[in-house]
Amino acid sequence: IFTPWLIRGSFLQRCARDITNMSQQAVNGVSHRGRVLTLDSMNPNVKRVEYAVRGPIVQRAVQIEKELKEGAKKPFTEVIKANIGDAHAMGQKPITFFRQVLALCSYPALLEDSKFPEDAKQRARRILEACGGHSIGAYSASQGIECIRQDVARYIEKRDGGIPSNPDNIYLSTGASDAIVTILKLLVCGEGRDRTGVMISIPQYPLYSAALADLGAVQINYYLDEDNCWSLNITELRRALSAAREHCNPRVLCIINPGNPTGQVQSRQCIEDVIRFAKEEHLFLMADEVYQDNVYAEGCQFHSFKKVLFEMGPEYSNTVEMASFHSTSKCYMGECGFRGGYMEVINLDPEVKAQLIKLVSVRLCPPVPGQALLDLVVNPPQPDEPSYATFMKERTAVLSALAEKARLTEQIFNTVPGITCNPVQGAMYTFPRITLPQKAIDKLGLVPDMFYCMRLLDEEGICLVPGSGFGQREGTYHFRMTILPPTEKLKVVLQKIREFQLRFTQEFS
Amino acid sequence: IFTPWLIRGSFLQRCARDITNMSQQAVNGVSHRGRVLTLDSMNPNVKRVEYAVRGPIVQRAVQIEKELKEGAKKPFTEVIKANIGDAHAMGQKPITFFRQVLALCSYPALLEDSKFPEDAKQRARRILEACGGHSIGAYSASQGIECIRQDVARYIEKRDGGIPSNPDNIYLSTGASDAIVTILKLLVCGEGRDRTGVMISIPQYPLYSAALADLGAVQINYYLDEDNCWSLNITELRRALSAAREHCNPRVLCIINPGNPTGQVQSRQCIEDVIRFAKEEHLFLMADEVYQDNVYAEGCQFHSFKKVLFEMGPEYSNTVEMASFHSTSKCYMGECGFRGGYMEVINLDPEVKAQLIKLVSVRLCPPVPGQALLDLVVNPPQPDEPSYATFMKERTAVLSALAEKARLTEQIFNTVPGITCNPVQGAMYTFPRITLPQKAIDKLGLVPDMFYCMRLLDEEGICLVPGSGFGQREGTYHFRMTILPPTEKLKVVLQKIREFQLRFTQEFS
Repeated sequence: IFTPWLIRGSFLQRCARDITNMSQQAVNGVSHRGRVLTLDSMNPNVKRVEYAVRGPIVQRAVQIEKELKEGAKKPFTEVIKANIGDAHAMGQKPITFFRQVLALCSYPALLEDSKFPEDAKQRARRILEACGGHSIGAYSASQGIECIRQDVARYIEKRDGGIPSNPDNIYLSTGASDAIVTILKLLVCGEGRDRTGVMISIPQYPLYSAALADLGAVQINYYLDEDNCWSLNITELRRALSAAREHCNPRVLCIINPGNPTGQVQSRQCIEDVIRFAKEEHLFLMADEVYQDNVYAEGCQFHSFKKVLFEMGPEYSNTVEMASFHSTSKCYMGECGFRGGYMEVINLDPEVKAQLIKLVSVRLCPPVPGQALLDLVVNPPQPDEPSYATFMKERTAVLSALAEKARLTEQIFNTVPGITCNPVQGAMYTFPRITLPQKAIDKLGLVPDMFYCMRLLDEEGICLVPGSGFGQREGTYHFRMTILPPTEKLKVVLQKIREFQLRFTQEFS
Repeated sequence: IFTPWLIRGSFLQRCARDITNMSQQAVNGVSHRGRVLTLDSMNPNVKRVEYAVRGPIVQRAVQIEKELKEGAKKPFTEVIKANIGDAHAMGQKPITFFRQVLALCSYPALLEDSKFPEDAKQRARRILEACGGHSIGAYSASQGIECIRQDVARYIEKRDGGIPSNPDNIYLSTGASDAIVTILKLLVCGEGRDRTGVMISIPQYPLYSAALADLGAVQINYYLDEDNCWSLNITELRRALSAAREHCNPRVLCIINPGNPTGQVQSRQCIEDVIRFAKEEHLFLMADEVYQDNVYAEGCQFHSFKKVLFEMGPEYSNTVEMASFHSTSKCYMGECGFRGGYMEVINLDPEVKAQLIKLVSVRLCPPVPGQALLDLVVNPPQPDEPSYATFMKERTAVLSALAEKARLTEQIFNTVPGITCNPVQGAMYTFPRITLPQKAIDKLGLVPDMFYCMRLLDEEGICLVPGSGFGQREGTYHFRMTILPPTEKLKVVLQKIREFQLRFTQEFS
């Protein structure tokens, strides 16, 4: 189990480099000048990028799956991938109505087919009429199809109790990640002490650290309070900000609510405090709200930053600059593969808007099937429509199962010695803390929770992501696990992790 | 007709800025500190980005379309958008087989439907089996679905007469643009005189200049030879390269073949010379081959850079680093909205490959419907399959119509005084040269061919892109027009441009 990637970065990188360079030159006699593009001559920012959700553990999991296919004997028969929020891969079925409309849009001849309900056909016709040549194969406007942006604005108004939303402030995107990176790209500038600093929570979703490394921005960590259900604490925000002002120019505050990987749901009060803080400190707010339908815990409720911002009055709603992000990949639909999403911008400078539209136009447009899917998410079947009953049944089934699994996960983990787990108030993940025996921590050159997860994968076939991939307080160790496996399978997973934790603790005590 | 965006950039930008700042502060009382994100405080590289294909002319065209809808009286009843290679928007019908399979993948219940041919069902089943949970709503591997990468490799081998292609060298992407920007991102580094320089043709497809501005790379222009059918001339490459070596570090050579916007198809000899040049000068080759099925002219033929590279022997095929790009958006399918594409990398350093996979994993995966569509493009119906006849009929109809329109366009333009037009050997565009009267050129503060195209749009409802958006030799003027409108409509367009050209010349003589 001395898999190379368990060794800390730089050392491995060096020897790996030497080895491959030698072997490669042997293999195909590269000219004495060597290659144009090598690890030494490539973009250094890209080298700094890390993305644990699809890191070494997952690569190893894929390899094990292949070995199993080829008949290798293992202590398990399948690898359970609880590393990524990929609902359909975990067996969740697509929402029938959504897929009917997408089929109609893909192959409009089906509009003559009596098997499809009228409301599905009506949605498909409306989308097709908004497409060039009535085909989802045409480019759309770079900002997204206009009638879909109007539907998104209506959805937001309804969600936020009537607070107006302007379709001109809606930008459709290739999943939420695309929009998040685009806004960060607009914001990052300056050199040295003037370099843009961006505040992100620790633990964080590694898209943020990856994008900041890529853009060469300064990452400013603020720590969530594990002892208080991973809540966000303004004092900690102040500490992080004033420390950062010593060496960079903090301009952006990123919030993920409900939290990924930590599953907390922010109180209205907390959101109000964050907004006040952003205004006082002159920060651009980025609100990652892709889990807005994923709230499970008693007494918890999703409050959008937009709604709270406007309820705080014009002093805030006319000045605080904000972008909020949503996606088709999470919530009850879990349609990750379509890469659909949108952002709403508030108080964005009109000239910057023009720059934003210019920037997105270079990539022509977000995938049109993803735009169509997003339109259905924000404009689902209504009570008077034929598909309503089935849609609600399917939607409720997914969300109540998730709520059940969230409770189950917290309960069982907290019975395991050496594992402590906050309630999964929302989103799709649990981020329990694991107590590792000193002998395991001391293992020379190994990242302790990476070592733990790699052992778990090899021994039980369960694929998790080490806490180190999301960031955690020095000396603490965690892992992220999705709550997406079907309930019965999840129970098995939790049981296996329990046994592994006991075994692991014993082995290294 | 003194539309503001006709005024040269910087001046307009300044006054526009002052105006909006004032009005905005009036509107919503921005705090005295002003906004966090303004034109002055945003990423300067983004400001340098330009993308004429969706620039001011197109924005004006969209506005005119709205005015027509609202019943405005114009000298025309519709706007004909010949500015962008968007086949479906111009009325081209999707390939039936492709859309049948996509419908089956979107709504697998249709697999039971006898209306769908067996080969379509078989393709859909194979794709679904390769998806997590058998759903195109699951994330795929970041590099793309494995069996699709295998099909792409087989397609390339067949295309290149058996020269081997390795699926591990295939990376699926969100259209070709995504892959092009990703490779450039890996390559760009260094500061000052060490900054990476990238050679691009002039005229160019503005994705390249936009990506280089965004990445802060140095753009190195080499001019295509308009007097010789826009052919690429090695002497000109040498000139551009040695000039650039004075102030940057040239590392990359970008080629578009068949050419966009210029429509030339490179001879095998020319490709060989380019490859030899790249090896001698130690340049990374980027071959944009998205129009590989779009070759019309007698005696012209598409040669892939990969094939020529390998035919030149191991001295080249083992050393020259290259990436080649393809897309679902062009050729006979024209499925732009799905954002499907792939790149094949040759001789890429194994460590850089690992970095590339890490980088693409941050965006999770390319849109899965686009991946599915790409699979059909590289693995279309075979002679023994039920859908073959219809597929070939549809494919041939599109390609022969394009060939006919390519001839027609050249013919007619060359009868117009003041317009000279090279043969459209391939791709989807013509880039004719226009002779403008001195009075029009002298119009204070106006970009002459932008002025010409804006007038054409306002008077005839025809939307073209000014040559200045692609780059052209100082003192020459052009426009890019797609040959995509249906033949009858194209004839009308050509006739209208003819009349406009005569009128315009008279008015300013």
